Parts: sequence; structure tokens; C-alpha cells
Amino acid sequence: MEEQKKKDEEYMKKAILEAQKAFEEDEIPVGAIIVCRDRIISRAHNLTEMLCDVTAHAEMQAITSGANMLGGKYLKDCTLYVTVEPCVMCAGAIGWAQISRVVYGAADEKRGYSKFAPNALHPKTTVTSGVLEEECRLLMQDFFGRKR
Amino acid sequence: MEEQKKKDEEYMKKAILEAQKAFEEDEIPVGAIIVCRDRIISRAHNLTEMLCDVTAHAEMQAITSGANMLGGKYLKDCTLYVTVEPCVMCAGAIGWAQISRVVYGAADEKRGYSKFAPNALHPKTTVTSGVLEEECRLLMQDFFGRKR
Repeated sequence: MEEQKKKDEEYMKKAILEAQKAFEEDEIPVGAIIVCRDRIISRAHNLTEMLCDVTAHAEMQAITSGANMLGGKYLKDCTLYVTVEPCVMCAGAIGWAQISRVVYGAADEKRGYSKFAPNALHPKTTVTSGVLEEECRLLMQDFFGRKR
Repeated sequence: MEEQKKKDEEYMKKAILEAQKAFEEDEIPVGAIIVCRDRIISRAHNLTEMLCDVTAHAEMQAITSGANMLGGKYLKDCTLYVTVEPCVMCAGAIGWAQISRVVYGAADEKRGYSKFAPNALHPKTTVTSGVLEEECRLLMQDFFGRKR
């Protein structure tokens, strides 16, 4: 249990690195990685501004690129680490991809899936929240603080 | 009112043409088009198999390409025509894009957003369902009938 927690924090740090890249590019700072059997198969950060595309969330890109890497569209033995709670769109994609585990940092009370689509994920998917929560949340707060 | 109905059916026929392309490519037959001020700005059909990507739904691609066409990520004065009720993922994307109107053909009782995420769309978005419903539904039934 303690070992899992350590591993989760280690991987979440990689997702935070991605979120920081987004921050530096003036994108809403969300980062994601996908891990398959202890190997990172994709890394992505939000690119909605640069790509001028509302669908270019970190999770969406990580899923597309992870499936590409594995050569199959289902990510059944994979864990998605994402700095902020997925939105409805991303939760729907996570559901379609049948990702087995989702770990997120900060909750998103405004747009998070757990409020709007609590059953969007595959029924077998397990969810862990609050991993390095403060660090993930502060990145978002800093970003939106500067925007005001 | 009658004129709107005629127009909706006309545009839905274009979306059905897209769905038929998907069918011929052995993809789940869903097609979508986006119309902005009486002009079609994007056409797409489901490509999840070919692209090996669960996110490659017709609506997602239509949104990405429509935003590209308009040069802005919001599709506020646009109508999305799609042959089948959008799933949770697509409804989330439609919400982010702030598409003003959604018109769909057949309901999707298993994966449709109205069951799993009824509030996923932008509050101002209006929805019309059942346009050329039978034609849209029969394409799906034919497809899954052949698969059995």
C-alpha cells in the first residue's frame, strides 16, 4: 500500500512536469501520463490554445498516443495519471479506452466528471484522487490568478 | 418551422452520407457535419478502427476540423448534425465548443449522453432529435446485424 502510494506520487510528478510545460506555453496547466506495466507509454499536456481545438486536453492526447504506442485502441492494463480531475469529455474517452485505473491530483468542482457524469468511466475502472493534490491545484490557481 | 424541418432533413442527409462512408469502411456507421450560417464547414465519419483511436468519433473530428476552418475554437453559431445521439465524450466536446444547436437522428440508449451526462452540453445549446431517425437507426442495425 505504502509502495503504491510512493509509485503514484512518482508518476504524478511526471504528469506535473507536463502541466508545467502547459503553464509555460500559456495553456491551462494540466498534464497527463499513461503507465502500462510500470512503463510510461505516453505523456501529454493541454494544447487547446495552440491547436485551437477544445478536444486537445492532456488526457485525450495521452489516450490517442498511448493507443498508438501499444497498437491497440483499448488501454486495459494502463493507469492514467492526470494533474486535474478529468472533465466529462475526457471521462467519456477514458471509458471508451477501458483504462483500468485513473489517478488524479486536484478535484475540479466546476467541470469535473464526478459531478456531471459519475458513471462515464468503465465500471471496472478504479479511481484514486488527491495525489499531490496541492501541487496540482496551485499550478491551476497560479495560472488563473495571473489571468485576472 | 416547416422550412427549418426541411433544412434539417437536408443537412441530416449529408451526415447520413458520411455515416455510409463509415459503413463501407467497416466502421460503426456514424456521420456528422457542422453547419455555420447555412454553410457546411466540416464533414466527418467515425474512424475509430482505422485510426486505432477511441477518440476518433465523427463529432470529435467534425469539431476539430470545424474550428480549424473557422480559425477559432468556439463554434457558437454552428449546428452539429449527427446521425446518432452523441456519447458522453462527444457531448463534453460539444459543450466545450459551445455549439449552439445539436440535431441528431437515432437515440443511443446504451451510450447516449442524455442518460449519462444530461447536463454536459452548454446550457444555451438547443437540441433536436429524431430527424430522419429511421434511416440513421437502420444503418446501425444493419451494421451490427452483419457483425453477429
